[in-house]
Amino acid sequence: MPTTYQNPSLQAALRQARAARQAYREGKVEPTAGIAPGMTQANMIALPREWAWDFLLYAQRNPKPCPVLDVIEAGDHCTLLAEGADVRTDIPLYRVWRDGRMVEEVRDARPLWQEHPDLVTFLIGCSFTFETPLQEAGIEVRHIEQGCNVPMYRTNRACRPAGRLHGDMVVSMRPIPAHRVADAVSISGRFPSVHGAPVHVGDPAALGIADLQRPDFGDPVRIEPGEVPVFWACGVTPQAAVMASRVPFAVTHAPGHMFVSDVPDSTYHV
Amino acid sequence: MPTTYQNPSLQAALRQARAARQAYREGKVEPTAGIAPGMTQANMIALPREWAWDFLLYAQRNPKPCPVLDVIEAGDHCTLLAEGADVRTDIPLYRVWRDGRMVEEVRDARPLWQEHPDLVTFLIGCSFTFETPLQEAGIEVRHIEQGCNVPMYRTNRACRPAGRLHGDMVVSMRPIPAHRVADAVSISGRFPSVHGAPVHVGDPAALGIADLQRPDFGDPVRIEPGEVPVFWACGVTPQAAVMASRVPFAVTHAPGHMFVSDVPDSTYHV
Repeated sequence: MPTTYQNPSLQAALRQARAARQAYREGKVEPTAGIAPGMTQANMIALPREWAWDFLLYAQRNPKPCPVLDVIEAGDHCTLLAEGADVRTDIPLYRVWRDGRMVEEVRDARPLWQEHPDLVTFLIGCSFTFETPLQEAGIEVRHIEQGCNVPMYRTNRACRPAGRLHGDMVVSMRPIPAHRVADAVSISGRFPSVHGAPVHVGDPAALGIADLQRPDFGDPVRIEPGEVPVFWACGVTPQAAVMASRVPFAVTHAPGHMFVSDVPDSTYHV
Repeated sequence: MPTTYQNPSLQAALRQARAARQAYREGKVEPTAGIAPGMTQANMIALPREWAWDFLLYAQRNPKPCPVLDVIEAGDHCTLLAEGADVRTDIPLYRVWRDGRMVEEVRDARPLWQEHPDLVTFLIGCSFTFETPLQEAGIEVRHIEQGCNVPMYRTNRACRPAGRLHGDMVVSMRPIPAHRVADAVSISGRFPSVHGAPVHVGDPAALGIADLQRPDFGDPVRIEPGEVPVFWACGVTPQAAVMASRVPFAVTHAPGHMFVSDVPDSTYHV
């Protein structure tokens, strides 16, 4: 992956991505929506090697919620997506899972890699990546405007199981004016590696979501008259699988607190 | 995956796909380009379970040549891509690999599953899938017109290694009139799961291909004045990895002799 760019705005974004990772390494915590616009962001899940096959198969079978951008082999903590980055420290906030329950949030995951030296780490595409193209097309992204985390919801849609892993799909939601829904679909659809086109447009009840103002993860956002809730598959889906499948041990990012890479979003444009 | 369709042309294609698989099961051998137009075709590789992680990782790291459509777990021979199909018999021709060398071509692979009861089978997208949309856009597909197999070439482009697997990318080539190259790019680009947009347009020497009339796999095709050779990543790439990496045992399809599925190509349209 290239790490310098001729294009001045990409250069600026690259500097922002590196500065953000450095700040998170030093302990800063914030949701990453809107950070280093133009750079790909990623969900993270690290599992003991003994669970890696099941997870990679789960991802292959559920490519909308789990598009894998990089796999970091057992015990390693470097990724091709960002030179010099350390996935154990460069994410703003981590969640620690034991027997399917979230037991702790930490800012430095290095002790967990010491506890489990064979962790295999998966970086998974994040819909924050196509928010820059949405904004460039004049589509407002509400949670960025409100300065909060994106709202995420558990749904009643079962993922296709793999080995010991099963669970329901998690989605993120953005309110979109009715006359821009088609644009939001076609713009995000060009980025299948970062969840692609929406999985559902409209009625939240059909997904088993009772109240949009009470998301399961992240923050609620304002929905204005004439706006339609649009739902994209979300990279928090692996965390739902960890819970449903009672995985003995896992480390993940905290929802909305992503790995900010050095890869321009255009890399994943098809 | 659905197995009946309202659309009459899809119904016809589904019937053709089923009839083709039945004929191959009974021993017919033919390249599958142009068979059951509108239905997705797939490359196949089956490896002992002990190699499955390395291969799935190799595919994840090389998504252009190795887009995985389905993984069939150890010892099984059924796929979601076609109800009732048996991947051990329903491909027209198989290749058997031992210690990285192709030792035999067979029409019935069941004895190999008896020899290795833990084979994990990968079905990988095939560029034949977007040939129907190319033809519908008025772009002639030369090997279909000539009634032969598509020409395929080994290149000098290394794939990203994974575990014990390494090797160069294999490409397929279609001559396209200069004024239709952009259309061929954008049409195939909408199908990233079946290799997507070309990896190279023009000069074969830049890929290390000495003579287009001497393909490494498949048949040579006529190139007319004003046509540009256009190269797509090819699902024979895993076979090059088997060779380069001296994999102890593998079963694959024979190049150009694909698994014809019941899944409409539109399923993979983004």
